[in-house]
Amino acid sequence: MHSKPIQVLLVQGANMEYLGIRQPEIYGTMALDELHEQLIAHANTLKIMLDIRTTNLEGEAITWAYEADRKGYDAMLINPAGFTYAGYALRDCIKALIMPTVEVHMSNIERRGMKSVTAEASVGVITGFGRDSYLYGLNAIVDLVKGKS
Amino acid sequence: MHSKPIQVLLVQGANMEYLGIRQPEIYGTMALDELHEQLIAHANTLKIMLDIRTTNLEGEAITWAYEADRKGYDAMLINPAGFTYAGYALRDCIKALIMPTVEVHMSNIERRGMKSVTAEASVGVITGFGRDSYLYGLNAIVDLVKGKS
Amino acid sequence: MHSKPIQVLLVQGANMEYLGIRQPEIYGTMALDELHEQLIAHANTLKIMLDIRTTNLEGEAITWAYEADRKGYDAMLINPAGFTYAGYALRDCIKALIMPTVEVHMSNIERRGMKSVTAEASVGVITGFGRDSYLYGLNAIVDLVKGKS
Amino acid sequence: MHSKPIQVLLVQGANMEYLGIRQPEIYGTMALDELHEQLIAHANTLKIMLDIRTTNLEGEAITWAYEADRKGYDAMLINPAGFTYAGYALRDCIKALIMPTVEVHMSNIERRGMKSVTAEASVGVITGFGRDSYLYGLNAIVDLVKGKS
Amino acid sequence: MHSKPIQVLLVQGANMEYLGIRQPEIYGTMALDELHEQLIAHANTLKIMLDIRTTNLEGEAITWAYEADRKGYDAMLINPAGFTYAGYALRDCIKALIMPTVEVHMSNIERRGMKSVTAEASVGVITGFGRDSYLYGLNAIVDLVKGKS
Amino acid sequence: MHSKPIQVLLVQGANMEYLGIRQPEIYGTMALDELHEQLIAHANTLKIMLDIRTTNLEGEAITWAYEADRKGYDAMLINPAGFTYAGYALRDCIKALIMPTVEVHMSNIERRGMKSVTAEASVGVITGFGRDSYLYGLNAIVDLVKGKS
Amino acid sequence: MHSKPIQVLLVQGANMEYLGIRQPEIYGTMALDELHEQLIAHANTLKIMLDIRTTNLEGEAITWAYEADRKGYDAMLINPAGFTYAGYALRDCIKALIMPTVEVHMSNIERRGMKSVTAEASVGVITGFGRDSYLYGLNAIVDLVKGKS
Amino acid sequence: MHSKPIQVLLVQGANMEYLGIRQPEIYGTMALDELHEQLIAHANTLKIMLDIRTTNLEGEAITWAYEADRKGYDAMLINPAGFTYAGYALRDCIKALIMPTVEVHMSNIERRGMKSVTAEASVGVITGFGRDSYLYGLNAIVDLVKGKS
Amino acid sequence: MHSKPIQVLLVQGANMEYLGIRQPEIYGTMALDELHEQLIAHANTLKIMLDIRTTNLEGEAITWAYEADRKGYDAMLINPAGFTYAGYALRDCIKALIMPTVEVHMSNIERRGMKSVTAEASVGVITGFGRDSYLYGLNAIVDLVKGKS
Amino acid sequence: MHSKPIQVLLVQGANMEYLGIRQPEIYGTMALDELHEQLIAHANTLKIMLDIRTTNLEGEAITWAYEADRKGYDAMLINPAGFTYAGYALRDCIKALIMPTVEVHMSNIERRGMKSVTAEASVGVITGFGRDSYLYGLNAIVDLVKGKS
Amino acid sequence: MHSKPIQVLLVQGANMEYLGIRQPEIYGTMALDELHEQLIAHANTLKIMLDIRTTNLEGEAITWAYEADRKGYDAMLINPAGFTYAGYALRDCIKALIMPTVEVHMSNIERRGMKSVTAEASVGVITGFGRDSYLYGLNAIVDLVKGKS
Amino acid sequence: MHSKPIQVLLVQGANMEYLGIRQPEIYGTMALDELHEQLIAHANTLKIMLDIRTTNLEGEAITWAYEADRKGYDAMLINPAGFTYAGYALRDCIKALIMPTVEVHMSNIERRGMKSVTAEASVGVITGFGRDSYLYGLNAIVDLVKGKS
Repeated sequence: MHSKPIQVLLVQGANMEYLGIRQPEIYGTMALDELHEQLIAHANTLKIMLDIRTTNLEGEAITWAYEADRKGYDAMLINPAGFTYAGYALRDCIKALIMPTVEVHMSNIERRGMKSVTAEASVGVITGFGRDSYLYGLNAIVDLVKGKS
Repeated sequence: MHSKPIQVLLVQGANMEYLGIRQPEIYGTMALDELHEQLIAHANTLKIMLDIRTTNLEGEAITWAYEADRKGYDAMLINPAGFTYAGYALRDCIKALIMPTVEVHMSNIERRGMKSVTAEASVGVITGFGRDSYLYGLNAIVDLVKGKS
Repeated sequence: MHSKPIQVLLVQGANMEYLGIRQPEIYGTMALDELHEQLIAHANTLKIMLDIRTTNLEGEAITWAYEADRKGYDAMLINPAGFTYAGYALRDCIKALIMPTVEVHMSNIERRGMKSVTAEASVGVITGFGRDSYLYGLNAIVDLVKGKS
Repeated sequence: MHSKPIQVLLVQGANMEYLGIRQPEIYGTMALDELHEQLIAHANTLKIMLDIRTTNLEGEAITWAYEADRKGYDAMLINPAGFTYAGYALRDCIKALIMPTVEVHMSNIERRGMKSVTAEASVGVITGFGRDSYLYGLNAIVDLVKGKS
Repeated sequence: MHSKPIQVLLVQGANMEYLGIRQPEIYGTMALDELHEQLIAHANTLKIMLDIRTTNLEGEAITWAYEADRKGYDAMLINPAGFTYAGYALRDCIKALIMPTVEVHMSNIERRGMKSVTAEASVGVITGFGRDSYLYGLNAIVDLVKGKS
Repeated sequence: MHSKPIQVLLVQGANMEYLGIRQPEIYGTMALDELHEQLIAHANTLKIMLDIRTTNLEGEAITWAYEADRKGYDAMLINPAGFTYAGYALRDCIKALIMPTVEVHMSNIERRGMKSVTAEASVGVITGFGRDSYLYGLNAIVDLVKGKS
Repeated sequence: MHSKPIQVLLVQGANMEYLGIRQPEIYGTMALDELHEQLIAHANTLKIMLDIRTTNLEGEAITWAYEADRKGYDAMLINPAGFTYAGYALRDCIKALIMPTVEVHMSNIERRGMKSVTAEASVGVITGFGRDSYLYGLNAIVDLVKGKS
Repeated sequence: MHSKPIQVLLVQGANMEYLGIRQPEIYGTMALDELHEQLIAHANTLKIMLDIRTTNLEGEAITWAYEADRKGYDAMLINPAGFTYAGYALRDCIKALIMPTVEVHMSNIERRGMKSVTAEASVGVITGFGRDSYLYGLNAIVDLVKGKS
Repeated sequence: MHSKPIQVLLVQGANMEYLGIRQPEIYGTMALDELHEQLIAHANTLKIMLDIRTTNLEGEAITWAYEADRKGYDAMLINPAGFTYAGYALRDCIKALIMPTVEVHMSNIERRGMKSVTAEASVGVITGFGRDSYLYGLNAIVDLVKGKS
Repeated sequence: MHSKPIQVLLVQGANMEYLGIRQPEIYGTMALDELHEQLIAHANTLKIMLDIRTTNLEGEAITWAYEADRKGYDAMLINPAGFTYAGYALRDCIKALIMPTVEVHMSNIERRGMKSVTAEASVGVITGFGRDSYLYGLNAIVDLVKGKS
Repeated sequence: MHSKPIQVLLVQGANMEYLGIRQPEIYGTMALDELHEQLIAHANTLKIMLDIRTTNLEGEAITWAYEADRKGYDAMLINPAGFTYAGYALRDCIKALIMPTVEVHMSNIERRGMKSVTAEASVGVITGFGRDSYLYGLNAIVDLVKGKS
Repeated sequence: MHSKPIQVLLVQGANMEYLGIRQPEIYGTMALDELHEQLIAHANTLKIMLDIRTTNLEGEAITWAYEADRKGYDAMLINPAGFTYAGYALRDCIKALIMPTVEVHMSNIERRGMKSVTAEASVGVITGFGRDSYLYGLNAIVDLVKGKS
């Protein structure tokens, strides 16, 4: 049984800070803080301790991922956002991690003609459900962690 | 309030019938019937009436999708499977449907170097979680239908 | 002189059944049945016996084409629709037919960045005139058949 | 009712002057003058005043198109011929015109592996019917003009 | 020793029904029925029970292949014909089969600039020997089955 | 000191004559004559004698450029417009000129997915500022000429 | 009237710190400090308060851009320099900003076979005038801000 | 025997007028007039009546070619120069001519990474010998004409 | 009747000498000499005089092929092996031969992502049956020779 | 003579911190600290003062490189690691440095289908020798520095 | 003055030995020996000592070229023939030679869709004049040698 | 302990014989013999018996490699030189060898836009250090052999 909380690192990639302002027809008008509050609330119901970090620096995301991995975090949830296009170093990092990673996108990136270079490194990818992409990602992480234990 | 059951068409594309036999290192050893039993059980908990259809014919999948759409189904859940590579007609069909579609794949198709030509037509895509990709897809459909109503 | 009626097979490819519903900004709001009534009316004025068939299955279209060809039909009029993208087998079929084929599209497919893989197999191609593309195609068939006889 | 004649500019692109000499297995042996006589005869039956111009200079075709458009011509019929391959400026011109344009080719250009860069700018395209491609184009223009009025 | 007859499914893909009519300069003038008689005669000498099926529907070919595989057939001989260009679903099916598959083409497809997307899934491929490609394929199947037993 | 006026050839490429009519959402509603008046007014303030020429013929633009160069003009300002896509001969001409060339575009051509084949031949390129692209180009020419003298 | 100073963020991308040392045949021998002094002097004449920042980190440039945008800066002037090749995250950032951006390059990047991935996100792009590219960019910003007010 | 003089049209394509000024390290310093004098002198020794025409307009070159062909000229010698890159209409023209064409280039265009789109239409191509490329071309024409007669 | 023995040149291309050592998981552990013994034994049963030659030099293979062709050999059997990738000269040679050529590969080269540049020049190609590819090739040659006589 | 120690900056790019954990089948099980100890020991025998820096931020690597270059370091040894794929800014930085750079990779990157975008900027590249790639790189730097002095 | 004979190495590449047999519709029916006799006769009139060598081995051609260059030959005339497609080593050899090289092809290789990888290394290239391509090549060599002396 | 000398085959590929003459700005002015003397001297200090072979024939290099491998040589050092571009057969040979191979290039081939097709087959690759690339390669071989023993 997995009684202690599940530790999850949530990494928000480049440009997420303007959520709600940037392309609201795609991403909606909810601000990043508001999104994070809802994610924490949902995480609580799942007994997930959610460590949320936002960065515009791909290398910083990599550093955080290794730190969390060394500390024994159970999983990473990542929206590569601006790193989606050329985040090859991040991709190799995700492959190197001991903890599993789930990648999420708010929009259906295929519809926008985008290709995620990091996607191949994750366990699974969830795209297109707006805020709910994150919620489904957290749910999936619970299943992954339980499946392992 | 949405008291009547949610009607969902589940389309299983080409080659799904050999689930459990074909590439078990990727898809596991669960047979298609067993998978369908579990999906129906899960659908029941979500008050979803799940209409499951399996076909090796892309055109048959298209015909079923239009039929369900005309009958007022609430959503389609689809694993294009063998239609993933060249299902352009299916893609145009999904775009034409009034009901929303969620696309799922058991494997992380990016890791296998595959590109889904239908993905751009769906609301969202979930890949990589094996059987659970379907469960998450059903959960997402409930949210989509509720969000509409 | 060609006093007996001209027999023409009209094949409507994948997704045509949602004509009037699907992308009305491109295809207009006329339903398939209504279109077919108008085509039959026009065919009558041209002494064409029009055998209309609609299918989402590329292989079924191929089978019908060979059947009509064996029965001595004078020509095929085809809107490959959903088969436009990858209908290579249909293309080879059209090349094999003894009767000539005219390909039509309601929209100007070049404007939409589409390429018809079947186009090279037809005598000629007419795109962009909505319902009238079919009418012009029937007119052209009359000329082709008369030119032969 | 459209009682005054329809004014149509017919532009014959580069190399049309050698019609009947050049690649007769594709284009037939009818000379350009003979073709034009037949087109004028057909135009007369349609109450079209046909203003025929032939040029090897893409820019001259552009200039004529703008002139006709400013004078209130009803439509342009164009066989881009030698401009088919790289007529990007002509394409932008056609997009800019107030009058509609119909593009025709005597041969089925898809069969010859050619791609028309101007095609996307026209209302519709008719290829493969030899001399009759022009006749069908004139017929289509009558319908377009009537549809507008 | 392998005393009971070898069961082989022969699948003839799209457009094979016009064998003898279509491109006789490539495929010769022998009709499909005649070809099948000769194949059955040859199969008899090899103690092969040959189950011949012809279809224009890729999905039907897939369904037959799985059925034969479930029934314990010893091998499949396939001429993908019209499915050669885009038969990705068929390719995945062949990979999934327990029985081995041998792919044949009557013409040397490389000479015609064609690439078979299914070829990588078969044990081996034989191209270019007309009717004899099938005979050699049957011979090879006997060796494959004997090699296994 | 540079007391005599600076002689500048302004070449307006194909389709500029429909400025104000063509794609006003991109180019605005100002007509070409009006634009030219404003450019002359600005040129006067800069002591530039502006020789404005508009053509739909790439070769005519080339001829004018060589003429001006031979007469000792100080610079060319060019909006290749319709020659942007395939103006390779114009590009080689600009490279051959003794006088420097500045290329301008009213729209940000990168945003429209266009690539200027002539751009590499100019001293510099200014795109995206509408009418002001020309003004900045004239300003730049003054600096270039002064920098030389 | 716009009496208060115009606030402009100038972002100098990767490798700008070696200006004057790196490829002097392209960039000249002026050092970055000297360039900045001249830009500030010019900005003063335009009543621009110029906030100059230099970084080798694409993510830091993004962070600064959002900060300035939140503080109500009027515009960004950017030389993406080393971010020109793969700065997709920066490109999305520029698209998200409320303030307009002008992109400048000292060299004519087309001549060097480079493509700026960020260029499509800016209002306009100025390349090839060395130091003066910045000056023209500042001039353009004044016009843009005045045009808005 | 071929006693009357051989009539040859020499077409000099775009940018030839700046020969001797443009890229002298490639083309040398001889001016176009001087080149033409030497070509006429050489033509005289070969009993060739050389009709030299220079144009920056691809369409004009096409018009001249058809005129000469109609008048019964024996051959065309062409340096497509600026038309080398995108002269598709010129290529089709050369294919249509009754008289043979020899294409020459002063420089070795392969070394400069250029591809001549017209080259496939000529009898033969001579590149890299500077002025002498023309002389060899005239020599070859004499042989071609004699070989015919 | 063909009573005299059939003369066949067998050419083994580059790297065949390490058969049995090189990639045994693909090619098995049989050495080249052993393979050749078995081929000679099989050839004897077919009344084929088999002239086996192995070379790492593409040009030597070409020379042998022309020699055998001049001497009136009946056919060539070739495993291009290391010449598969870039053997363009060998391809042209095979096209030039009077005798027919059959190309064999021990492995299914499509499965390994290889493309044979020589394949288009042969009558037919047999891949994937290990040693038996050669045996089938010899059988096919007997049929080809008999078919001719 | 070069009696004072040689100063070398060693830059370890993104993901190096997980050396020994990440893909041990490629990189071995030696941790980064252990590697660095061995490199320092080897550097001491070569009288190299080795300044080792590890970063996941490409921009930080660039900043360090310029700092070292300004301080007069003799050379840079770099394993771009995660920057190998898209480190265009780093590439331009290496080109700008006064000190020479040697690039090393532990694995043979060609075998893994990788292309180093920075490689062209270095004096030389050493790949495939695991830890020893670094040692050979340091040896090469000694030779380079001696060769200069 | 150049009184001693000009020494020229003529290299005939792969497949030339079947001249007259191979593709006579392209290369004619003259055999290689006959061609060589005519070339020697022509060379004699030009005071060229012609050293003719034919090989199917690219490396042998390279060796001969270096030998001739070391002995002070004046020029090489080469028909790369089968080496045209992938003769990169030969190309580098030609670049290294002190003597100039002229490349000839009997056919117009552009018309056949071929690209010569060696062409960029020669002084000039002559294609399409059958046997006469060689004669013109020898003539050109005389001019080149005289031009040097 | 490894007391007997290490046997190393050094293969010098096509065009190496002109070392010192060919592109001295890249390769320096040292002749091949001189290079070989220095390599032998260095090999002696490493107790390597160096068997040096130079060839312009890729197949000969392959033959030598297999011979040395059969005789139990410890390693191959190779500069593919002219075989770098298309030496696919050589690549497969290197993969087949039991002894390890180290590939060296005198120049940094990435800087020259070259890609080595053989590189993936070697243990490691060293480029860019002129003569020293060979020395480092020999050093690496000693380490490889010692590491094995």
